[in-house]
Amino acid sequence: MFCEKLRAASRHNSSFLCIGLDPDPERMPHLHIPSFLQAIVEATADLVCSYKPNLAFFEALGMGGMQTLLEGLRSIPAHIPIIADAKRGDIGNTARFYAKALFEVYGFDAATVNAYGGRDAIEPFLEYTDRGVFIWCRSSNPGAADLQDLPLADGRPLYEAVAQRAREWNVHGNVGVVVGATWPQEMERVRRICPDMLILVPGVGAQEGDLAAAVAASLDANGEGVIVSASRQVLYASRDREYAKIARRSAQQLRDRINHQREVVLARR
Amino acid sequence: MFCEKLRAASRHNSSFLCIGLDPDPERMPHLHIPSFLQAIVEATADLVCSYKPNLAFFEALGMGGMQTLLEGLRSIPAHIPIIADAKRGDIGNTARFYAKALFEVYGFDAATVNAYGGRDAIEPFLEYTDRGVFIWCRSSNPGAADLQDLPLADGRPLYEAVAQRAREWNVHGNVGVVVGATWPQEMERVRRICPDMLILVPGVGAQEGDLAAAVAASLDANGEGVIVSASRQVLYASRDREYAKIARRSAQQLRDRINHQREVVLARR
Repeated sequence: MFCEKLRAASRHNSSFLCIGLDPDPERMPHLHIPSFLQAIVEATADLVCSYKPNLAFFEALGMGGMQTLLEGLRSIPAHIPIIADAKRGDIGNTARFYAKALFEVYGFDAATVNAYGGRDAIEPFLEYTDRGVFIWCRSSNPGAADLQDLPLADGRPLYEAVAQRAREWNVHGNVGVVVGATWPQEMERVRRICPDMLILVPGVGAQEGDLAAAVAASLDANGEGVIVSASRQVLYASRDREYAKIARRSAQQLRDRINHQREVVLARR
Repeated sequence: MFCEKLRAASRHNSSFLCIGLDPDPERMPHLHIPSFLQAIVEATADLVCSYKPNLAFFEALGMGGMQTLLEGLRSIPAHIPIIADAKRGDIGNTARFYAKALFEVYGFDAATVNAYGGRDAIEPFLEYTDRGVFIWCRSSNPGAADLQDLPLADGRPLYEAVAQRAREWNVHGNVGVVVGATWPQEMERVRRICPDMLILVPGVGAQEGDLAAAVAASLDANGEGVIVSASRQVLYASRDREYAKIARRSAQQLRDRINHQREVVLARR
């Protein structure tokens, strides 16, 4: 089960930090992507609960992109889960092939998906009961409000209805939600709707304030159930020769800050 | 411009038919996918306004999937546009890489996208002003109602708000919408919201009735502006040695039926 693998990795490394692997050629210290990712992974594998490659960055590399991805992931220890950030979503017959690609062909432990197509668009992913399925619920970007915040007839914003569906679809216990770190109030509402589900939290910036509020709002009743994801802040902490060491330092700081904020939240409860 | 290329191909072949290229190993007459697709394309290239490969089917082939796709598309004449059915959608920085992959690396003429992330998730695609961007609006599957039909506070269902956004975002004239063929009433509403935009219509079955209603509801004021997409009905018309010939016959019948229904609609106006 994905949840158990994640929990074990999280406890083993005392970490709720996930590092997003988004290789942007314009920001990287050198241009051999597999070596770059391997160096980042080797420098941080004892500090994270998971890694999250973003497929867009590999698809933009062209036909060798997925091979580059697999090479880059090679040094991830087997006990650390890998979440494919893919935001896939299409009607049932197509979704079956997307799920096959991500879970069977590439063997990812979990994937992010888009629920706009409704239940049968998600079902083929859910049927892989040993994998995690994270439904994109509320994003951290400025355009998030365009659709996600639209008020429904019953007064709720759309993203709350998406969270509600995610909860209904969680019959195998393998569904989580993606909620950006920028809006702690929205995060609190989603946590109330999905009290026992994993929340994947991208968009954590360098600011202590954001992180504190996001951690406080996303932790479940057991003080767990959250994956805080950072990408650029760790990957591109430095462009110099020591980049992996500096990425490690950045990851360590983030992990420790998350843990500290968690202690503060648990002490207040 | 994509719209012009599409219109030229549509007039050249007197066709509003798009063939969806969804190679499913379990249904194909033989297992060499590039040869299968090339045979289908060669047998139908004078009957269509466009082709629409569905990326899920190629991703499920593993690391060689995109190469298989490009090989399979090789016999498509340069004047016939190719629409990548990818339903991509993510926040701005990621969307930039998805758009780059589809439009620069693979050179598709158009792509389907998912608007859940809002304007900045779509903007990187729109900036390729010579390419078409089809926003997934109302799908034909049973689960479509789960989110797309949710009533908003102003009384409209969600998919109408998506159509409204698509219209607002159409500042470069390169935006279309995807609306499944199964619901002609919903199609009429979308056509009213987007009177001048392209509608991509998947989900046309073998039934004359569905086709007639879908064509009647989707044509614009000029009796154009529509792309009717069929996949399985053409690709898997037969599994025997003559499969390409039989696929051609199926495509020809569909093209002619669409044209006939169009004549009926225009005569009534």
